[in-house]
Amino acid sequence: MSADTSNDGCEDTREAIMKATYRALRDNGTADLTIQNIADEFEKSKSLLYYHYETKDDLLIEFLSWLIDRNAEFLEGDDVETTEEFVSAMIPRDVDDERAGFRAAFVQMRAEAASDPAYREQFTQYDRLYRETLVGLIEQDVEAGRLREVDTDALADVLLSTIDGAMLRYATTDDDVMPTTREGADRLLASLRGEE
Amino acid sequence: MSADTSNDGCEDTREAIMKATYRALRDNGTADLTIQNIADEFEKSKSLLYYHYETKDDLLIEFLSWLIDRNAEFLEGDDVETTEEFVSAMIPRDVDDERAGFRAAFVQMRAEAASDPAYREQFTQYDRLYRETLVGLIEQDVEAGRLREVDTDALADVLLSTIDGAMLRYATTDDDVMPTTREGADRLLASLRGEE
Repeated sequence: MSADTSNDGCEDTREAIMKATYRALRDNGTADLTIQNIADEFEKSKSLLYYHYETKDDLLIEFLSWLIDRNAEFLEGDDVETTEEFVSAMIPRDVDDERAGFRAAFVQMRAEAASDPAYREQFTQYDRLYRETLVGLIEQDVEAGRLREVDTDALADVLLSTIDGAMLRYATTDDDVMPTTREGADRLLASLRGEE
Repeated sequence: MSADTSNDGCEDTREAIMKATYRALRDNGTADLTIQNIADEFEKSKSLLYYHYETKDDLLIEFLSWLIDRNAEFLEGDDVETTEEFVSAMIPRDVDDERAGFRAAFVQMRAEAASDPAYREQFTQYDRLYRETLVGLIEQDVEAGRLREVDTDALADVLLSTIDGAMLRYATTDDDVMPTTREGADRLLASLRGEE
């Protein structure tokens, strides 16, 4: 099999590296993460990994870019066709352990964006993807009569801030704020459907 | 003057160290912060600083505890007597440079809480202070007829998640999401007053 030298092989290798990075982040967080940790998760030639990424930051920036593409695919899929479905997917009432472990690493990478321009660029793209998706869903919901007329930008930013804030609070405190935050977001949307 | 050996003197010294830490965080962030940076901001004997705090983490945990007390004083003051005033104070339409610099450092400390139990304890206290304050304000507003009957916990968690999420997005992206998030939060409260 000569797949490793074809374009498909390169994509396969990148995909395998990114999935190994996901597992290493989920299990170790970012602070103690080394390229060696990721190599331990990676089944193919470890020299490939060192060849592609000189530093941990290079690899994590590439990982964030890959993650945005994966999120974009999810947001374009059948599971997220209304504002309500978006909120349900982003503020789960229960967070499983795998997701919890990855969220902690995600918050740590996000905080890097407060001082590092390469991280900041990725999180700006990430924020715009979510915001534009939400604006599109709200507009469709209003047009279809599922929501009453609203200030689309203001509602999108309140919902996206609620989602990001709930994730931040979940990852950095001992209290599980997801169920009540979700309840509050559901009630907000219900009031915008004229149900209360 | 023998103030440094009295209790008042100790409080003065602690206050001076904490204010020096605030300035060092605002100007340097946390990544490159050293006790020497803070000593540079500190006008009294530098040996005192090294005597009190062995590591940067010791100092930052103490700083977070001090900051919570300062926030508690602010929240109990005359500027925050309604839910609307709380939201106005926490989601400013314009963020000045000083506050922006400190917020970046604050997000970085908060991300530490995703993996470090001592930081996590501080941010759990911080979250509870804000949440309990909001719950109290919402209850007062409902009682006084300024808000209609709501699920108090759910509204408090949506508002606090919105506040924390707006701060996170502000600190980690190139887009200024504060004005539209504030507009959305104001509209949410207006709808709960029956104004729209």
